[in-house]
Amino acid sequence: MSKEALKIVTIGGGSSYTPELIEGYIKRKDQLPIKEIVLVDIEAGKEKLEIVGEMAKRMVKAAGLDWKVELTLDRKAALQGADFVTTQFRVGLLDARVKDERIPLSHGVLGQETNGAGGMFKAFRTIPVILDIIKDMKEICPDAWLVNFTNPAGMVTEAAIKHGGWKKTVGLCNVPIGHCSTASEKLGIPEEELFFKFAGINHFHWHRVWDKTGKERTAELIDLIYGPNQSEEDSHLKNIHNAPFHYEQIKDLGLLPCGYHRYYYIEDEMLNHSIEEFEKGETRAQVVKETEARLFELYKDPQLDHKPDELSQRGGTHYSDAACEIIASIQNDKRTDMVVSTENNGTITDLPYDSIVEVSGAVTAHGVEPYNWGAFPPAARGIIQNMKAMEETVIRAAIDGDYGAALQAFTINPLVPGGTIAKTLLDEMLYAHKDYLPQFAEKIKEIEKNQPETVNYVDELMKSN
Amino acid sequence: MSKEALKIVTIGGGSSYTPELIEGYIKRKDQLPIKEIVLVDIEAGKEKLEIVGEMAKRMVKAAGLDWKVELTLDRKAALQGADFVTTQFRVGLLDARVKDERIPLSHGVLGQETNGAGGMFKAFRTIPVILDIIKDMKEICPDAWLVNFTNPAGMVTEAAIKHGGWKKTVGLCNVPIGHCSTASEKLGIPEEELFFKFAGINHFHWHRVWDKTGKERTAELIDLIYGPNQSEEDSHLKNIHNAPFHYEQIKDLGLLPCGYHRYYYIEDEMLNHSIEEFEKGETRAQVVKETEARLFELYKDPQLDHKPDELSQRGGTHYSDAACEIIASIQNDKRTDMVVSTENNGTITDLPYDSIVEVSGAVTAHGVEPYNWGAFPPAARGIIQNMKAMEETVIRAAIDGDYGAALQAFTINPLVPGGTIAKTLLDEMLYAHKDYLPQFAEKIKEIEKNQPETVNYVDELMKSN
Amino acid sequence: MSKEALKIVTIGGGSSYTPELIEGYIKRKDQLPIKEIVLVDIEAGKEKLEIVGEMAKRMVKAAGLDWKVELTLDRKAALQGADFVTTQFRVGLLDARVKDERIPLSHGVLGQETNGAGGMFKAFRTIPVILDIIKDMKEICPDAWLVNFTNPAGMVTEAAIKHGGWKKTVGLCNVPIGHCSTASEKLGIPEEELFFKFAGINHFHWHRVWDKTGKERTAELIDLIYGPNQSEEDSHLKNIHNAPFHYEQIKDLGLLPCGYHRYYYIEDEMLNHSIEEFEKGETRAQVVKETEARLFELYKDPQLDHKPDELSQRGGTHYSDAACEIIASIQNDKRTDMVVSTENNGTITDLPYDSIVEVSGAVTAHGVEPYNWGAFPPAARGIIQNMKAMEETVIRAAIDGDYGAALQAFTINPLVPGGTIAKTLLDEMLYAHKDYLPQFAEKIKEIEKNQPETVNYVDELMKSN
Amino acid sequence: MSKEALKIVTIGGGSSYTPELIEGYIKRKDQLPIKEIVLVDIEAGKEKLEIVGEMAKRMVKAAGLDWKVELTLDRKAALQGADFVTTQFRVGLLDARVKDERIPLSHGVLGQETNGAGGMFKAFRTIPVILDIIKDMKEICPDAWLVNFTNPAGMVTEAAIKHGGWKKTVGLCNVPIGHCSTASEKLGIPEEELFFKFAGINHFHWHRVWDKTGKERTAELIDLIYGPNQSEEDSHLKNIHNAPFHYEQIKDLGLLPCGYHRYYYIEDEMLNHSIEEFEKGETRAQVVKETEARLFELYKDPQLDHKPDELSQRGGTHYSDAACEIIASIQNDKRTDMVVSTENNGTITDLPYDSIVEVSGAVTAHGVEPYNWGAFPPAARGIIQNMKAMEETVIRAAIDGDYGAALQAFTINPLVPGGTIAKTLLDEMLYAHKDYLPQFAEKIKEIEKNQPETVNYVDELMKSN
Repeated sequence: MSKEALKIVTIGGGSSYTPELIEGYIKRKDQLPIKEIVLVDIEAGKEKLEIVGEMAKRMVKAAGLDWKVELTLDRKAALQGADFVTTQFRVGLLDARVKDERIPLSHGVLGQETNGAGGMFKAFRTIPVILDIIKDMKEICPDAWLVNFTNPAGMVTEAAIKHGGWKKTVGLCNVPIGHCSTASEKLGIPEEELFFKFAGINHFHWHRVWDKTGKERTAELIDLIYGPNQSEEDSHLKNIHNAPFHYEQIKDLGLLPCGYHRYYYIEDEMLNHSIEEFEKGETRAQVVKETEARLFELYKDPQLDHKPDELSQRGGTHYSDAACEIIASIQNDKRTDMVVSTENNGTITDLPYDSIVEVSGAVTAHGVEPYNWGAFPPAARGIIQNMKAMEETVIRAAIDGDYGAALQAFTINPLVPGGTIAKTLLDEMLYAHKDYLPQFAEKIKEIEKNQPETVNYVDELMKSN
Repeated sequence: MSKEALKIVTIGGGSSYTPELIEGYIKRKDQLPIKEIVLVDIEAGKEKLEIVGEMAKRMVKAAGLDWKVELTLDRKAALQGADFVTTQFRVGLLDARVKDERIPLSHGVLGQETNGAGGMFKAFRTIPVILDIIKDMKEICPDAWLVNFTNPAGMVTEAAIKHGGWKKTVGLCNVPIGHCSTASEKLGIPEEELFFKFAGINHFHWHRVWDKTGKERTAELIDLIYGPNQSEEDSHLKNIHNAPFHYEQIKDLGLLPCGYHRYYYIEDEMLNHSIEEFEKGETRAQVVKETEARLFELYKDPQLDHKPDELSQRGGTHYSDAACEIIASIQNDKRTDMVVSTENNGTITDLPYDSIVEVSGAVTAHGVEPYNWGAFPPAARGIIQNMKAMEETVIRAAIDGDYGAALQAFTINPLVPGGTIAKTLLDEMLYAHKDYLPQFAEKIKEIEKNQPETVNYVDELMKSN
Repeated sequence: MSKEALKIVTIGGGSSYTPELIEGYIKRKDQLPIKEIVLVDIEAGKEKLEIVGEMAKRMVKAAGLDWKVELTLDRKAALQGADFVTTQFRVGLLDARVKDERIPLSHGVLGQETNGAGGMFKAFRTIPVILDIIKDMKEICPDAWLVNFTNPAGMVTEAAIKHGGWKKTVGLCNVPIGHCSTASEKLGIPEEELFFKFAGINHFHWHRVWDKTGKERTAELIDLIYGPNQSEEDSHLKNIHNAPFHYEQIKDLGLLPCGYHRYYYIEDEMLNHSIEEFEKGETRAQVVKETEARLFELYKDPQLDHKPDELSQRGGTHYSDAACEIIASIQNDKRTDMVVSTENNGTITDLPYDSIVEVSGAVTAHGVEPYNWGAFPPAARGIIQNMKAMEETVIRAAIDGDYGAALQAFTINPLVPGGTIAKTLLDEMLYAHKDYLPQFAEKIKEIEKNQPETVNYVDELMKSN
Repeated sequence: MSKEALKIVTIGGGSSYTPELIEGYIKRKDQLPIKEIVLVDIEAGKEKLEIVGEMAKRMVKAAGLDWKVELTLDRKAALQGADFVTTQFRVGLLDARVKDERIPLSHGVLGQETNGAGGMFKAFRTIPVILDIIKDMKEICPDAWLVNFTNPAGMVTEAAIKHGGWKKTVGLCNVPIGHCSTASEKLGIPEEELFFKFAGINHFHWHRVWDKTGKERTAELIDLIYGPNQSEEDSHLKNIHNAPFHYEQIKDLGLLPCGYHRYYYIEDEMLNHSIEEFEKGETRAQVVKETEARLFELYKDPQLDHKPDELSQRGGTHYSDAACEIIASIQNDKRTDMVVSTENNGTITDLPYDSIVEVSGAVTAHGVEPYNWGAFPPAARGIIQNMKAMEETVIRAAIDGDYGAALQAFTINPLVPGGTIAKTLLDEMLYAHKDYLPQFAEKIKEIEKNQPETVNYVDELMKSN
């Protein structure tokens, strides 16, 4: 890098997160010699792109910067000369997420947009698109970095690197950021005086913490956060229910879990809570949809020229800030310690060499240099190996449009409680998302033709929303 | 080996399976220069030992053999001079299994005496005993072979070899035998003209089949057995419900599953069926208990001097026959191809080097020489890695009597649907099995003292049996 | 297989070994429903092909068989309808081997046609040809088995499988056969009552031996063969100098070495002996050349219709017999235990998964099923890992014609004593073999142009032969 | 750490390097709250200890510091309250090194005090001592860090961590420091603007270099340093002959070698040069001995209170400075990027998990956090795997005093050209070092008794020095 005049392109630029991204760039204006920011979206997102794009222009102007902010629906044109491409698009918008959550929950199964039934379908919809973007990048901007924060970030990043062959991809998540804050608060030690080491896969990682005297504080943090005297207000994650882990189990593990481990370690609690939400019409997707609507109302205000506080309720907060830090760190070879999705290459010896993992590393000008992690204790090892195999199967299904592979993925996914409900969900969700799954077109046609009960069930459910 | 006068000791000699074992020896009388068979049991099993022991004597006599058959409660004395020790004991007898199944099912959770909640508790009860037997063997018969068919055979064998350090252990299961028959029947080809290759862990393995022209027949068998035209009467396993797998998933996998995979691949179907059985008071344990009672009535008949047909309904049929074949193959360096639980040592590259795995191999005089298997496809890889990690955690808990480890094992076990029910089940089962879990004594006392609801629940449930 | 009418094609049919091959088929006439044997050679080998081909016809006739024996220079035509293709060709004939040995020895370096400087050049000459044969086979006989015994058999087999993609390749060597005989003789136990387990790579493997009582006899054999009282006449290998190993080192290793380990374990002794031979004009290549000339004289005798005893002095004896046994075992699913070069797939955990290794296995109709080996002790582990990496580098150089890769291979080869002599040898041998190394044509031209001393040295040396 | 008053103990305090160490502490006085420095040595080193110790006191005083500098022969007393223990002792002093080099060279074999015959014997002498020191530390200062720079640093560190169980050990070498300077000079870019990544084992590692624009500069550096236009004055290593590598081979490798790779890549050149030195009575050991004598003369000067320039000719320069930086980085959690010998744990996937490797990492208060390296290309992979296996065998021999293991190590060491000379050297060196090899006492007695030619040879050679 070390370029004089940066061009940063954001695909899914019409997202409600964009102001956070812009704020992140502004905060780092001394590190980022930006010349041009291009926000790209598709026809269906045009209105939102315009609202949030104008807001972005106001923010840049208010900061006294001469950066050019462009809005476009022409992806190929946008990629011309790009130095960084960030991806935050959502195929099918929030309506797709509503389906991802409501269909499983209507059967008493977790939707879970990260690695559950919902997450698998988000992968089915997203992976063909990311591979398509990479096809364009190969042709148009072959030296650009791809900073992905479209979920499921782990699988999307694995598809981009392993299948798309785009080595210069970094996947991002905001979850580790919250865990660092929590540890810092609990110990009463500034974050920069702690050494954090995360390892796992996206939305499924653990971490250890040391202080600057060299003492490991992991066990102490387990006590403070998950022990008998834990307070109820611990989670920094707005988007998942804050049910308490079982202390004895976490203590036995000896590693700090991530918030999403609740879906696996206390699946029953999380399911009950999600069903409650579903019954009240308040699934996370539905809540987020309303938050978003409110945010866009705010963004329309021609006086607003800074990120509104309300955005932090959105759930993915810090996401965009992390993206900006990665860009700044690559641009300036800052070697910032961050937690990112990157090639394993033996960092975690329990997972395949060519897997994408989410680990701590230094972000340099030539990419991420992960700190070696090694092996997990058995209790963490098996469960993550299963998740990774599930991810690989999802990616295979997403690329090949293979129904058997998709059913396989649903069957081995630990959040799907059995092969028969797996098949029911899979069929219903294929039908529900038919507009965004060209690779499964033939199977979907078959379902439409031969399974009227599937079609009716989904149609009725979606009406009832 | 090549000994002239064999002494074979069977621990748990009072089992209803013993006649099958005796029959197996008689069938191989030309290969086995038996001098003495000792059936060992404990005080609580004395009556059954005498019934079945007398029956064994009659069988040997009817076969015109001069083998000495001894019955004893003195294990140490029995081990003196032993060449082979077979283990088929059941700590807590079938009543324990009833608890293993009924407690989980009362909460709508599978009991599953192999690798489910029930299996984990069977491991907790059994592992300390097998390690104790090995302690005796080290002292008394340091060159004897240990042929284990006490379930959960995989975990018990892993404990014996890895933790007990008894390298000369072979673990056995009857499940593969049935799958070989099925394949042979479906293809219309004699078993000996097919080449079978199994790999996995006990009650969780897959297999491939080739014919003598070198053609792999696995995919064809998947079609024949699990395809659209499958018949309902396929299973050779008497002890598990014969629900159909989902064809597309098995086809995608490309490996033939074992019967027990139903608990993982169609967990919902198996659970529903088990709940039905539970509600009718017909859990597998209860059915077996009745079968056993009937068998012992038969065995009492002083005229009966051969294995009655009714025994084959018991479920574990072929088990003892396999044990006899292993003994004969070791004794005579027969190099019979069998499927056994043995040290991995890289046979399955996806599992730890020092794990016990269940694989095809040649049984030689110096032990099992497994055929190399290599790596699984991802869909099989992750799920078995998780099972193995669970097994390791169960064994650790069984040895250390550590409550956190036990909760960990329950939490990561795929048949337990969440951490909160895991804790409930764990506590209830600890209390229910308190007489057989000395290693957990302290925790159990704590439960008895502080958790009256746990105590009452179990007491009531057991009364209602 | 199980074909009714077999067609077996031998490439390099004009080899002096062919009568052994024919004898092997005749010996197995009941197992091999042969219809046609085709001996293929190239123009340069036409005369020898005719001599040995006529001899083959006489042998078949004398055996009272109606097999068709055909001689041809048209490889493509020969491959039509082939069931088995065996390869025993030698690119550049024995003259090339003479250069392989004499050039290095003239500098005081081992030539070693298996894995030394000579072996690497044999690989450079042979690998392009085997890949070309495979190209033909893909097109003409896509279901045929390739049984390779062209040396260096390990590297040639690895090229065929990994780079040619021909999975149905088995590589063969006669070395293990001799070691089995030795063990049997030393212990006074028939071979079939011993269990042998070999592992390593071609010409670089170790083995362990058990008897039928289950007792491991490896240490005892080390004592008997390499201990203080070893006799001088132990080796069954005619083609390598029978210098004694150092007993303490072999004992420490705990594995029985193969004859070729002498080149690594007592390199200095072997080098001294080879230099003596070189100085007398009696390098192994020269001796073999004379033996061959004598053999062909014998073969010309129109009365000779059986393999002459003199062939066994040739060195590679048993080679062809092993090939016939492999063919018979594949054809009849005999599952004979043999030692072959086949895909590793984790059999030896210390070597790459996709490597070719030489291991014990059962030869079935669908190929080799190796017995799992696992890990080596460190002293064997490192040295074989280095050999395998050298092999991989040789293969890369052979395929790419890359001079840097070739120099790399020479530099890391343990039989080449330094990088400077490596470069000298490499340049001289490239020039010496220029007619058979099209992939290195450009570099060779450069040498001819710029390095007159290289050219002169080789020309003079070859004259002096 | 974060201790207020540090105690640093240096074992082998009488070394000529000590002034560099003291200078390093002084340079970092603001980071190191030193209270006490203890220099420990043994009776035989007492005079040197006093000379250099007084010099150290003068240096501290001249720097205006109140640090206490103590000299002692009582190791146990010295360890009391130690925070850091550095080891720079040399068992048998330089006279032992003279033997390590001259005996092999007298037979035309490299002595090589790092990983050759000399290095193996240095390991035999040193490993029992380091294990003894650790035994003391366990008892006396169980929380101290051990910073080892006694050679062979890799094997000594592996013994300390794997066999001594002292996890808080860091091994150090100055070689990488020189390579960083060279790269910086060649590219004309300050070191801190480059990213270096080293991996391998001590005295046998490679590195890659990136600049702050993210561009990898490794290939360019290979061209600049080893390409056709290389200058002769490249090496920063004073202690090894600066013969040129073969450019094509290094280019093919694609990694920058370390200076010591000359012994493996151009062994013949290095051997010739060493033999010349030997013949002139100027082996490296002899030269160093003279340099040392001169240094100690200088140190005696009561006016000298700073490190003299002559020390940099000693060869190991930067060693002590690196040690000081490690101490400062641990003490202050500086997270300095350094190259150290530390536990592999999968950092290099080609080497055993529990090996010690030399890699780049951040030095934190809790130890080294290595950057993951992953797999080597085959050409580097095999050769380092062999070296590691050799190291493991050396360590085993050093601990067990096993002659077979020692012969094994000599046989597989690539710098020993054959098993027969291996045995000769081993016997001669065992005898020559008999005073420092109690673990081999019995074998040495045997040699003295039965091998008069060995005894005479060594005695004569040593006289001729």
